This record gives sequence, C-alpha cells and structure tokens, in this order.
Amino acid sequence: MTHDCSFLADLALSGEVSFGDSVRESHAADFGAEERGEGVTPDAVVWPESTDDVATVLPAADERGVPVTPYAAGTSLEGNAVPAHRGISLDLSRMDAVLDVRPDDFQIDVEPGILGAQVDEAVASEGLFFPPLPSSGDISTVGGMIANDASGMKTVKYGEVADWVLALEVVLADGSVVETGSRAAKTSSGYNLTDLFVGSEGTLGVVTRATLELAGRPEQIRGARALFPSLDDAAEAVFDAVRSGADVATIELVDEDSARMANAYTGTDLPDVPMVFLEFHANHGVEREIEFCEGLFADHDCRRFETADEDAMDDLWRAREELAYAVQLWDPDLTALHPGDVTVPISDYPEMVRFVKSQAADRDLLVPCFGHAGDGNLHYSVLVDEDDDAEVERAHDLYEATVEKAIDLGGTATGEHGIGLGKREFLESEHGPETVEAMRRLKRAFDPRDTLNPGKMFPETAEGERVRLGESD
Amino acid sequence: MTHDCSFLADLALSGEVSFGDSVRESHAADFGAEERGEGVTPDAVVWPESTDDVATVLPAADERGVPVTPYAAGTSLEGNAVPAHRGISLDLSRMDAVLDVRPDDFQIDVEPGILGAQVDEAVASEGLFFPPLPSSGDISTVGGMIANDASGMKTVKYGEVADWVLALEVVLADGSVVETGSRAAKTSSGYNLTDLFVGSEGTLGVVTRATLELAGRPEQIRGARALFPSLDDAAEAVFDAVRSGADVATIELVDEDSARMANAYTGTDLPDVPMVFLEFHANHGVEREIEFCEGLFADHDCRRFETADEDAMDDLWRAREELAYAVQLWDPDLTALHPGDVTVPISDYPEMVRFVKSQAADRDLLVPCFGHAGDGNLHYSVLVDEDDDAEVERAHDLYEATVEKAIDLGGTATGEHGIGLGKREFLESEHGPETVEAMRRLKRAFDPRDTLNPGKMFPETAEGERVRLGESD
Repeated sequence: MTHDCSFLADLALSGEVSFGDSVRESHAADFGAEERGEGVTPDAVVWPESTDDVATVLPAADERGVPVTPYAAGTSLEGNAVPAHRGISLDLSRMDAVLDVRPDDFQIDVEPGILGAQVDEAVASEGLFFPPLPSSGDISTVGGMIANDASGMKTVKYGEVADWVLALEVVLADGSVVETGSRAAKTSSGYNLTDLFVGSEGTLGVVTRATLELAGRPEQIRGARALFPSLDDAAEAVFDAVRSGADVATIELVDEDSARMANAYTGTDLPDVPMVFLEFHANHGVEREIEFCEGLFADHDCRRFETADEDAMDDLWRAREELAYAVQLWDPDLTALHPGDVTVPISDYPEMVRFVKSQAADRDLLVPCFGHAGDGNLHYSVLVDEDDDAEVERAHDLYEATVEKAIDLGGTATGEHGIGLGKREFLESEHGPETVEAMRRLKRAFDPRDTLNPGKMFPETAEGERVRLGESD
Repeated sequence: MTHDCSFLADLALSGEVSFGDSVRESHAADFGAEERGEGVTPDAVVWPESTDDVATVLPAADERGVPVTPYAAGTSLEGNAVPAHRGISLDLSRMDAVLDVRPDDFQIDVEPGILGAQVDEAVASEGLFFPPLPSSGDISTVGGMIANDASGMKTVKYGEVADWVLALEVVLADGSVVETGSRAAKTSSGYNLTDLFVGSEGTLGVVTRATLELAGRPEQIRGARALFPSLDDAAEAVFDAVRSGADVATIELVDEDSARMANAYTGTDLPDVPMVFLEFHANHGVEREIEFCEGLFADHDCRRFETADEDAMDDLWRAREELAYAVQLWDPDLTALHPGDVTVPISDYPEMVRFVKSQAADRDLLVPCFGHAGDGNLHYSVLVDEDDDAEVERAHDLYEATVEKAIDLGGTATGEHGIGLGKREFLESEHGPETVEAMRRLKRAFDPRDTLNPGKMFPETAEGERVRLGESD
C-alpha cells in the first residue's frame, strides 16, 4: 500500500526529497529483480547529504510506520535495494565523499555512496588499493558492498569486504547513531557490531561512514589464461591449485557456454572451450608462482597457458572482463533469469559445476557458468525465452535445484549477493529454523517496528510485521 | 548470593556435576582476576560432555534465574570466565574432541575444550596449521580463544581468531541450538552470527562446536632477533616495517625492562636492551624478505641482527618465549597488577610505547612492556609491592592512564583479552553510550534473563538485571 510521506517536506534536511514518478520508478529495480517482477515503486525518494539527514528521516519514518529502503547504485542482483513495501527509498549516492586518508595506517574513511573505483583512485598515489573490490567496482558503491558483504576476483588471496571494514558509523531506525569497531587493527572490546552490520542488507541500520583497510600494491602483477579440453579438467585444476596452496590473487573459471558468448562478443579467435583466468601478486619471484600453477594445470590436460604483464593483461583477460555484457547481449530474444551465485567448499567445486551443467543438459536449457572459482564460487544465469512458459518453468526448477545442491554440499545459497528478495525461500533450508529465529531476534532488537528494508531476508516474519501494521501491497 | 543448584542432580546429563569446595574454588580465578580480588566462587561446577548436556543445563538454569559462566582452561586475564554472581561454572574442558578433519578444504571441526596446540597436532601430518594461535596456545582452549577473539604472534600476517572461524554451533540460554556460518569460504546468507558470537565472552551463548579454517605450512620458516639502542628506535623500526609492507609473520617488541627480566631468567649474555623478534614465512625467496627488514632496521640504528633456521629458532627466541614466566618470577615480593594489553593504530605505536614508559618513570613504577607490535599491540604489567598502598594507587592510576591514552589515540582498551570484569569501566569511554546501548540490545535479544556470564562487559545493566532478579553478592 501507499504510505503518506508528506511529512518529509516538514523535516529540516540538507538533502533533496522527490515525489516525482520517473524518479520513484528509477528506484524500483536493480540488475536482477526486474526480470522476476519483484519489488515495488517507493512513494518518495530522499537523497540525504549527511548523517544528520539520515538520523532525521529514520525516526520520523519509524514513528509513522513508513518503510525505508536504502538505495545507491542499484547494481545488486537479488532486489536487495528495491522496496518490497513502498515507503521511502533512501538514496545515499550523494554521500560520496572521501573524509580522510591515513596512508601510514593503511586506512581511509569514506561516505557510503562513493564508488569502489573512487576509493582506489583516492589512494593510488600512496601505493595502496582496496583489495576486495567486486567486478562491478566501477559502478557500485561502498555502501552497497558493505550491505551485501561483497567479494570479488581477488577474494581468494585477500578476503571479502568484511575483512577490510574496520569501523562503521550506522544510524538505527530510532535515529541513534552507533560507532562500531576501532581504528586499531585488532580489538576484543565489546560485541563485534561491525561484522553484524556488514552483510545485513540495510535491514538493521543505515551505514553513513566506513573506515576501510587498504593493502599495499604488490611490486609484481602478472596475468595468465589457461584453456582446458573439458570443464571437469578446468574445475579439477582450480581445486588442485587451491589445495596445493598456490599463491594466486585471482582464479576465475569460465565454462564453454560463457566462452562462446565472450568470444562472439569480443570477436577473438579463441576456441569456445573452458578457460581459467589467473592473476599473480608478489613483491619478488612471481615467475615461480606462475611456473608452479602452469605445471599443476598441465597435469589436468591444460592445452594452452599464456601469461601477460600488467599492461597487457586487459587483452589477455578480455573474455572474462566483458563476460557480463556478452551474456546479456548474446541473444535479444532470451532473458537472463536468476543471475546470481552459490558457493561451496572448494573440494566440492568440481561436483557443483558438473551438477549445474548436467541439469542444464537434462532440461535443455542454456546456462552459462563462471565465477570466483578459487573461493568455490559459481555464478549462473539461465537464458530463456520468456514467452515459453514451459521453458521458464524448467528454468525455475533448475535454479532451485542448483541452490539446494549447494546447500546440500555444505555451501551457501549466496556467496556474495545476499538474500534480498530473490533468495528468501532458501534462508531456512540453509540455516534451519532455530538459527533463522536467532536472526529474527537481531532484527527485532535493532528495528522492532520493521522500518528498515522490510520484506527482505525473512519473508514470513517481515511481511507478518508489516501486516501487523495494517499494510498489504 | 548463593543460588540453589540442587536441580542439577535431577537433570539427565552425561557429564559430571560437583558441589565440592575445592572444585568450586578452582573455578573462581583466572590468570589475571585473582590479583584484583574480582570474581566469586560458583555454587556448582558442571562438566558437560555433549551439546545435549549444554542444551539441558542452560534452560534449566535460565528458568530458575541461576547464572551460568562458561569456563575451560582459566587462562584469561580479565576475569572473563570467573563468575561475578556465583551460580554454575560450566566447564567445557571435557568437550575436547576433534570431530572431523577436511584437509582438502583446509577445515577442522572441534569441540570447544580442545587446546589450541592439539588442533595443530591434529593437522600437522596434512601440512596444515591454525595460524591465529595465541602465545598461550598450549594451555588455552579453542573455546576460550573464540570467546575472547584471541590473537597471537602471527596475527600481523594471518589475522585474528575471528578470521579463521567459519562456522559455530552455539546453545542459547533458552536451550535453542544455533548453527552459524557455512563451510563455504564465502557467504552472504543472512546475518553474520558467527562473528557476533566470536568475542562475546560467553555472554550471548555457549559454543559447543567450531569449524576452523587452516593454512598450509609455508616451505620456508626463518627467525630473527634485532637489538636496538633505545625503545624509541625499536618502536619506530616496527612501524617502518609495517608501513613498508614487509612480509613478516611475526613482529614482537620487548622493552628493556622485559629484556632484563628475560635475560636474568634465561641466563643469557644478551645485553638488557630493547629487542624485536621476527618470524618470516615464505614458499620461496625468504632471504629477500629478511634482507629487506634488516636494511630497514639498520636505518633505525639496529645494533645486532641475527637470524636462525626453524630448528634453531627456539634458542634465538628464548628471551621472548620465556618472557611471561620471567616477568612473573622476577621478584617474589612484587605482584603483577593489571596484566593485559591495549592496541592502537600502527602509526601511533611509538607514541603509545613512549607514553607508558614515561608514565612509569614519572610514577617510579616498574612496568615491563612487550607485545605483538606489528598489530599496534602493547602488553603491560605493573609490578608492585602490594603492601605499599601508595604504590598500588600509583599503579592503578598508570593503568587507567594507559587505557585511556590508547582510546584517545583511536585504539582499543583491549586488543585480544576482552572486557571481562577487568575493563568494564572503559567500555563506554571507548564506544560511547549509544553504541554500548546497541550492544545491550544484543544481550537482551539473546539472553533476556541475564543468565549467561552476568556481570561481564556491561557493569551497570548486568548488575541491574541481577538486582531485578533479587540478587546481591
């Protein structure tokens, strides 16, 4: 239902408020939710420009039972930033400042709306970088990365976003402003609130400032591309590299379907075969790590292993870099359903890959797969003709079977994109009812009126809470 | 006040229950609390032998308003495992099994009572180790390390305990059994309960099983010891090494007072000067990292830089290895007050070290300092004649000034030992009232009757809760 948001006009805000149709509609979709018809249009959009603005809007909305859904770049895949219950879209993209750089401590303080790539730009002259940047880092915001606990190509060596967030300023639904963490590299003081807010998808509080840790740029950066005769060989090679402790900064897998799309899109003469893309970081002796991997890949029938210096890496890596667009533009008559990822223990990675591809063959579906293989992470998209109901039905079945398989293997329904709207049905099958109830306790503790991003993560309770407030969409 | 714990005899437990005086008294102290006269004797001790035992005791105690304080090795420094309100000491030391080792995934499942060193023993034949092991790893348990989010000498390279805990089984006060995390290396599924329970000092739930990540043993391990003419030179050298991105697995600082005690205790002919101890891990080219550090230390007037292979490291490192005993046994007439640590941003480390030593000189106190310098971590002990009230008073003043200084520098009251009983007074000065209130919300969400380890972390509220239940000690 529609919420009366006229109270926003009476608040003392530095930031803008809009009730315009096109603005509201532009805040009703992300990169994944649209295709599933999930999410609704907010009643108003607010662009806060300060912590004070956020701390003014939240309690005013909370008192009135008006939902607030944090938003920024809208690049998530699971509808995480798309309203499920109208209300206010709180667009943090104008809070995008670098507040402080402390190179001696490898730290930067930023506002949440800054793009990931802008963080790297701000510290490049100090020889530093933000290692867990996702592949979408040039179009997605730090706030979004924190909300979903994003990860990226270099996570296999450097870890995920949570590992690089030292401290946060967070506004709760009642307007209280919480400062989590410490500037010290290590603390055992009180509960770890930082890692609780990281990955909470804007359902517990709104991040208004983040202190990020940075790493020093290595002196040697090299890339490699390996071609394999079969996907099984490629996946087994990845597992073997990880198990052997190879010091690799990136291990990306691309299956033959993805390779075919990338090759067509980029116009190369590469064969349409499974590929593994590698990046190596070292201060010295990088050649030894490369040779080690090359030898190990040869044992898995690797047919072609090419390397490149940093300045030639873009060429070598083009098939991987352009893959998202290549899949999207492969066939204008096909729609990518359920783009996302699952992640499994690395020893189960070959089995997970085999499972998805055999399911796709059995159901006669086109399912390009790729991902941050070194983390056991597998991205999939099911390409379907949306007018073919039977095909769409088979695609949904495959998607469910894929996520349930990952959970059965001891893995997770979502390695890096969060639950959002898209994966609510899997929360309990992954974690069990008692654990989900523990999560609900947290939600109630911080947001008892279910003001922040309602309808996400917990389908039943969150909607129940909203129903309690007299709403139905 | 005493709690009636006779109901324990009626519960169906596999584990033992004791009401004996000597057993109860042995659960009333840790390595730090005793000297401060904090903590009280429990009314009963229970040794659970299974998750079921824990899930039976907790709700039975919870219903009756009987406090339960988890305990194991009793090696903490801040009274973390010592009852503040009598009740039950839940001794997890008999739940010490290795449940599963999955070397292909670098994972081990253990019960909480296992000693850290036993984890390393269980996986050594697979070429693996548990990197964040604290210095006390051969006498302290994994459960205690998790409860305090411990760290150790290798944290500067490998991170803290929280970074190596993938998943937990936790029993809440109401007896519900929560399974946190995933066996996947990366997950964004639901709230991060794992890192919430890590470091919560047994106040939110009792850990009954942990899935730990492991690392591959490097092919090259080397040690080094560097002597400096002044503590300032040593501290600046440490900062310079970290700032320069030196790949060091351990950087330990020992001040001249500690050096004097260690030299006397170990009977070496080393001069009583500030020392820095280093460990290097690499798969190849370890000499390059050592040379890099040696050159950098030379710029800070390092007078003697010696290295050793792994099998000769114990000798080279003896002064550091034996330091805890050396300080303890330095003078039988002196007592170590307030042993513990603070941690600051690395750029403030030299200032922090100078501050403590100048405060000690001003107050005519003997304060040996050492610590995991690469993390900005400083351990201190104030050695006093307990019969000298004026000296004890000056020691308390110095302790308070030290912790407040660390907080002023943007650091933390406790880098790795937790708040426990000892540092409750600093929780709010470090985090501020709104953040502490957010922590209290978590406590109330998981343990509304204040059954688990009451009186820790939050002095006022926790005691208030207990007062509400009609208790006063």
